[in-house]
Amino acid sequence: MLKTPRTKLRRAPQRGLHDRATLDAILDEALIGHVAFVTPDGHPAVIPTLIARDEDHLLIHGSNASRTVRALRAGAEACIEVTHVDGIVLARSAFHHSMNYRSAILYGTLEPAPDKARALEVFTEKLVPGRWEHVRWPSAKELKATDVLQLAITEGSAKVRTGPPGEEDEDYALDAWAGVIPITTQRGAPIPDPLLREGIDLPDHVRSLTTR
Amino acid sequence: MLKTPRTKLRRAPQRGLHDRATLDAILDEALIGHVAFVTPDGHPAVIPTLIARDEDHLLIHGSNASRTVRALRAGAEACIEVTHVDGIVLARSAFHHSMNYRSAILYGTLEPAPDKARALEVFTEKLVPGRWEHVRWPSAKELKATDVLQLAITEGSAKVRTGPPGEEDEDYALDAWAGVIPITTQRGAPIPDPLLREGIDLPDHVRSLTTR
Repeated sequence: MLKTPRTKLRRAPQRGLHDRATLDAILDEALIGHVAFVTPDGHPAVIPTLIARDEDHLLIHGSNASRTVRALRAGAEACIEVTHVDGIVLARSAFHHSMNYRSAILYGTLEPAPDKARALEVFTEKLVPGRWEHVRWPSAKELKATDVLQLAITEGSAKVRTGPPGEEDEDYALDAWAGVIPITTQRGAPIPDPLLREGIDLPDHVRSLTTR
Repeated sequence: MLKTPRTKLRRAPQRGLHDRATLDAILDEALIGHVAFVTPDGHPAVIPTLIARDEDHLLIHGSNASRTVRALRAGAEACIEVTHVDGIVLARSAFHHSMNYRSAILYGTLEPAPDKARALEVFTEKLVPGRWEHVRWPSAKELKATDVLQLAITEGSAKVRTGPPGEEDEDYALDAWAGVIPITTQRGAPIPDPLLREGIDLPDHVRSLTTR
């Protein structure tokens, strides 16, 4: 049940969605989420951080010395937002210029992830699918230095805008060009670490990340 | 003076910057900012919205019926964050996987922009440079329905990570591939509005937006 009074979409409700499939697709495509909380002294804060979904939970992680992790671990309520910008919408009127986007907002209180080692596997696989089996796994010391927190995906909403501009009827007669400039994200050719040992070829799990 | 006690970077301070040129470049490249505030009943909220910098102020706008605009107009403190993801950093250890990014965080209380019509010109030109002179300008009714708020850029910080992974010394001997997958944003070929009148060619100010 994702819909609650505060996830009801008041502005442009026709763009709002509360189904898990839409929400999950938006979350899974995003590397970064924007985690907002109220600081212990009452101020708003928002930080960008890597997110990874593990079934019905959204994971974030950080050093256990970070202010954000400490505030959230202490039970500060969170609001986590993810947005993909898909296009610039050019209307004939300045007023109706817009963006095409897909966004998701989740609410709730985070809790420690029950299995930190598994969570770090989920993060690594989120960044680069197939990576986990190729790398050195976290040491006990590294695991101890990291906190992983999870938010149950139970309250939230998605909002999606697609397509051409919507105009005032009389503006369709204007001679301005109107339409959409699509925006996409590309993954370029891998850049080897200058300290990479000789003789290590680019593995398939990295090669396949490059946008075709 | 961008540096204050709360903008001091405690985590990875070597990645932190407080100069205006760095901050402005990050803000100017971003279409979307993430605006966090505390709701009147004390909960954290964060929404994505178009941002545009007008010299020493960051502008946001919205319907004057929106909850966010109303809360901010009523004096709710804000934290506005912008992040560009520039690459996925693949280390030889799971623990040192990271992202290359440029982020900016601003703090403060917004106030109404003194000249709403000029602000809408700034937003339109931010979306598509050169667009303003080609479109119908806002009517009195449209201006009335829109609120434009501005945040003075006086308290904030930027954080930037670039380059290859940093590893534990002994991990450089591992035979895992390491390096960076660059991430870039592309603007594709313009898609005309299906309702575009015949005989309207793609203007130069739109053509020049496409990533070469």
